[in-house]
Amino acid sequence: MTRTLFPEDIHNMSPKELDLLTYEIREFLLDSISKTGGHLASNLGVVELTVALHKTFDSPSDKLIWDVGHQCYVHKLLTGRAQRFGMLRQLGGISGFPRRDESIYDCFNTGHSSTSISVAAGIAAARDLKGENFHVVAVIGDGAMTGGLAYEGLNNLGASKSKVIIVLNDNEMSISASTGGLAQHLSRLRMSRTYLGLKKQVKNSLASLPLVGKGIYSGIGYIKDSLKYAIVDGAFFEELGFKYFGPVDGHSIGDLTEILSLAKDVEESVVIHVVTQKGRGYRNAENNPGRFHQTGPFDVTTGAPLTVMAPTFSEVFGEKMVKLAREDQRIIAISAAMTEGTGLSKFKEAFPERIFDVGIAEEHAVTFAAGLASQGFKPVVAVYSTFLQRAYDQIMSDVCMQKMPVVFAMDRAGNVGNDGETHHGIYDLSYLSHMPGLVVMAPKDGLELEKMLDYACSLGRPCAIRYPKGEAGGFGAAFGSGNGGFAIETAKSELLQTGSDVEIWAIGSMVKTAAQAIPAINRRGYSAGLVNARFLKPLDEAGLKASIGRAKAIVTLEDNIVTCGFGACVSEFIRSNGGSGIRLLKLGWQEQFLEHGDAEGLYRKYKLDAASVAERICGFIEGEA
Amino acid sequence: MTRTLFPEDIHNMSPKELDLLTYEIREFLLDSISKTGGHLASNLGVVELTVALHKTFDSPSDKLIWDVGHQCYVHKLLTGRAQRFGMLRQLGGISGFPRRDESIYDCFNTGHSSTSISVAAGIAAARDLKGENFHVVAVIGDGAMTGGLAYEGLNNLGASKSKVIIVLNDNEMSISASTGGLAQHLSRLRMSRTYLGLKKQVKNSLASLPLVGKGIYSGIGYIKDSLKYAIVDGAFFEELGFKYFGPVDGHSIGDLTEILSLAKDVEESVVIHVVTQKGRGYRNAENNPGRFHQTGPFDVTTGAPLTVMAPTFSEVFGEKMVKLAREDQRIIAISAAMTEGTGLSKFKEAFPERIFDVGIAEEHAVTFAAGLASQGFKPVVAVYSTFLQRAYDQIMSDVCMQKMPVVFAMDRAGNVGNDGETHHGIYDLSYLSHMPGLVVMAPKDGLELEKMLDYACSLGRPCAIRYPKGEAGGFGAAFGSGNGGFAIETAKSELLQTGSDVEIWAIGSMVKTAAQAIPAINRRGYSAGLVNARFLKPLDEAGLKASIGRAKAIVTLEDNIVTCGFGACVSEFIRSNGGSGIRLLKLGWQEQFLEHGDAEGLYRKYKLDAASVAERICGFIEGEA
Repeated sequence: MTRTLFPEDIHNMSPKELDLLTYEIREFLLDSISKTGGHLASNLGVVELTVALHKTFDSPSDKLIWDVGHQCYVHKLLTGRAQRFGMLRQLGGISGFPRRDESIYDCFNTGHSSTSISVAAGIAAARDLKGENFHVVAVIGDGAMTGGLAYEGLNNLGASKSKVIIVLNDNEMSISASTGGLAQHLSRLRMSRTYLGLKKQVKNSLASLPLVGKGIYSGIGYIKDSLKYAIVDGAFFEELGFKYFGPVDGHSIGDLTEILSLAKDVEESVVIHVVTQKGRGYRNAENNPGRFHQTGPFDVTTGAPLTVMAPTFSEVFGEKMVKLAREDQRIIAISAAMTEGTGLSKFKEAFPERIFDVGIAEEHAVTFAAGLASQGFKPVVAVYSTFLQRAYDQIMSDVCMQKMPVVFAMDRAGNVGNDGETHHGIYDLSYLSHMPGLVVMAPKDGLELEKMLDYACSLGRPCAIRYPKGEAGGFGAAFGSGNGGFAIETAKSELLQTGSDVEIWAIGSMVKTAAQAIPAINRRGYSAGLVNARFLKPLDEAGLKASIGRAKAIVTLEDNIVTCGFGACVSEFIRSNGGSGIRLLKLGWQEQFLEHGDAEGLYRKYKLDAASVAERICGFIEGEA
Repeated sequence: MTRTLFPEDIHNMSPKELDLLTYEIREFLLDSISKTGGHLASNLGVVELTVALHKTFDSPSDKLIWDVGHQCYVHKLLTGRAQRFGMLRQLGGISGFPRRDESIYDCFNTGHSSTSISVAAGIAAARDLKGENFHVVAVIGDGAMTGGLAYEGLNNLGASKSKVIIVLNDNEMSISASTGGLAQHLSRLRMSRTYLGLKKQVKNSLASLPLVGKGIYSGIGYIKDSLKYAIVDGAFFEELGFKYFGPVDGHSIGDLTEILSLAKDVEESVVIHVVTQKGRGYRNAENNPGRFHQTGPFDVTTGAPLTVMAPTFSEVFGEKMVKLAREDQRIIAISAAMTEGTGLSKFKEAFPERIFDVGIAEEHAVTFAAGLASQGFKPVVAVYSTFLQRAYDQIMSDVCMQKMPVVFAMDRAGNVGNDGETHHGIYDLSYLSHMPGLVVMAPKDGLELEKMLDYACSLGRPCAIRYPKGEAGGFGAAFGSGNGGFAIETAKSELLQTGSDVEIWAIGSMVKTAAQAIPAINRRGYSAGLVNARFLKPLDEAGLKASIGRAKAIVTLEDNIVTCGFGACVSEFIRSNGGSGIRLLKLGWQEQFLEHGDAEGLYRKYKLDAASVAERICGFIEGEA
């Protein structure tokens, strides 16, 4: 499909043309994503649904809100963006998520889970206040429906007079399989009846029966447990104030357009329960939707990735967790729908009873961990840095305030590359730096991550370790972690090399960047040292004082915004400890939102790659910065 | 009641003695809280429930978790703390919330809403992993049940094998009346049947009926809408995987102990729906539970407060919102169950269709506001500073990232006094200071708050205004806002007085403290100036440069922790703008959790009252700090 299509084109297509279109779309997606990488399985799952939505509704006057948003590729294809897929998620190309600045068909940016119902409620309230007349549709997965924000939205919308159509895309998965009571409810709904066709039949036949009296009601109470799911469709949603329609086959455009049209005519807010298959139409993805949730470039025939990464930080974390759990029964793993992504698959195999995948529910993950910790356990909450933002208050109030020994393993910290703006983990050092009593560390490589986990699990107090996406290898014997004959000590940095002109205090993955920058600085005739900070909090005050004594200037380097991050803490320490005479340069991301693109390209663009860092440090030494 | 009681005493009491005890407790509460102030209405509502809980369960081996926690007074009375109520919420006295460090009967600290189910799930998981055997009981109000975290907890617990007993204390209110679909569900449950007595009757009679066949089921489908709430008890909870018991009269100790005992014997997790009356037994509170949710000292006979505050910041905010809304139809008010507390009652009367009370759902409040803003409205989200922590991610991702013109009116910023640790708003400047594109202000008095609202609503970008609990009056002609003939300009501070030795940059309520400190500094022979910062973000860089040029030293003063707050931002600016020669003293709260106590006492204890500030500044000028 290299045609540029718009919703009007869909409106004019016959059922047969629409069916053909779905083949065309799947072929295009497979061809395109196998080259660029991206979210494959979820998009293959919503081909018919997206076509049916654009057939039934008039975008952009009707508003379509895509929860999480990584399933918006088909929507992008049908709203004039097919030609731009060669640059999907690349620097300067289209985003993998809906973006208002990219298209008038994208009415709200998403990226983090479970926001769509609240957004839809807001847009619908605005519509009604202005007396306008259009439809507002939120498309939300069953995974995203486990997030507390989605429930808050449901709870409010259910009691409001503003009408929203909620399309619940039930593929039985978030990234891992969905968990929780709601998932079981949806599963019963799927099982309790065949799809739309039969159900309508039943309704029609019932409509002709006379009203039955109180005698029957009495009898029913007794048999309610076996029948109630059949009697009360989607009780969870109906009790919250919604009409429940479904379940409907999410791969039948005919059924979908019929039910969506019905939903348009109803006065109240509606939940349409659509059952889809993640990865639909591509056998490799159907069989392993988790692997193809998000993928790099791959071989279409075999499904094999074109490049294989050396052990990643996630893998190192996962392996170490298994070892720790073997040695200490108190170690518990907690994941928020990211068992695989955070590297915990092996842990799950080895200790199924000691891992809790709570679904997309970061707040609960943290407070639940605090509950476990209060009883003497050592919970390790493995969450992506950007998603842990959801639990800021719980980290503060339920963990730090009560000094609960919970360990936060924060994956995908720093620049995450192609996922872009909503996913970069470049704020965590800032939102953690002021949490009273929290220890915050970042390892320079995999071995150091292991040591930090040893340390964190023995510490008996709240502790966070943040580490990036990608490979966890060392970077040359000179600055690597060597044979591992070391242990992490509280607030103790690692002095890798002294320098008289400048000492670079780098944290986490940026130690590698600094190490790569130093030869270029040396070639310019300057003596540059390197300290692996290890700790954001507590800072290595003695180490900093020593640096101040040795070098003319300090440079801090972090994969975080410079506001209130590592450099800011170093700066404050220096100022309040009589070091205001020493020059300081803070390198990191400016206080900004950062676009998508390949990670290396982003570092280069914002002058945080090794060559730029060397250049900036030399300029600083020479008095330009 | 000056007796010191423990749970064992309750176990040994006869029904008659227990009934008498409830009178004694209510009298004690009324007598005690009318003197110290505190949360009255919610505690009067749970007298029988708390007695029944301690009668049925064995605390501390069984774990009782109090959601939010302000309803724990009766629990404290029954666990040996009666003698300490004279110092309730006072500096050095017992807390108004459960605290692990206060009693072994308090198994988890609470304060923020909706955590209890997650905590209970964590404790129950720990129990089961260790093979221990005790009950875990979460007591949660219908208000707290609207929070997303509570749902995340329910969703996970419902599918887990760990048993928890959830006592849903349904008083139809959070602080304001409860809102949302769940509230309507609970209301239908209350209406659908008389309480426990009748219900058991019905169950018994049904149990003797033979199983009825499929024919009846067919008929039922037709009449389901009228009967389903009668057929399926508490479907919302049952669908999530719980046994639902209730509703039960929350003021009958007999019914309560019976149903709690039943719940002990069930294998699965249970939700017990208890209906209570907020303020029960004290007519003034029954008639006006909102007024008596939290109260200062009051006259027991009339219910009138013993001290009346001059217009508070909340009142000024509320009045101004009415004016703004009259002038601009796009102004919308959003509250998270705090319509009264944030001063929005008059707005609600004047513009009922333009205020949205979303319940205890701060995350939804923010994302909903972003949805409204995307359609051209100007939503003002009025939330207490500490509770907005819940929405850190939504402020970042849904508002700032999309540059949505949402205004955050953050009440109860800084030291809030008696509510203590979980409620102080002393972190907001830190968690907002690194949000890209956010404007952050704090007014020194009510008039300035009005001007800041004018400015914020005209700005067209994300904006936060934080202001304290308490009176909003000016503080003497010299430094007051005068006749109001001024307007807020972006990043523009207000120079109140120049000084050659030191210039104090104070923000928000601390401008008053600084103004009060200056005469004492002058008396010591120093020339002290004062700048009302107004903006945390963007900083008044020109103003700071001018100060640097005028004075030998700068002192920052804020009602926030010093880490990553106002002083830290000033410090960073000075360092990176060639001002490292100037001396800087940052005054504010140390990075810590702050106990409860009267606000003035806390300022004194931590040397942030005017006299201490003067002393510290003189010391600093003299080179000691």
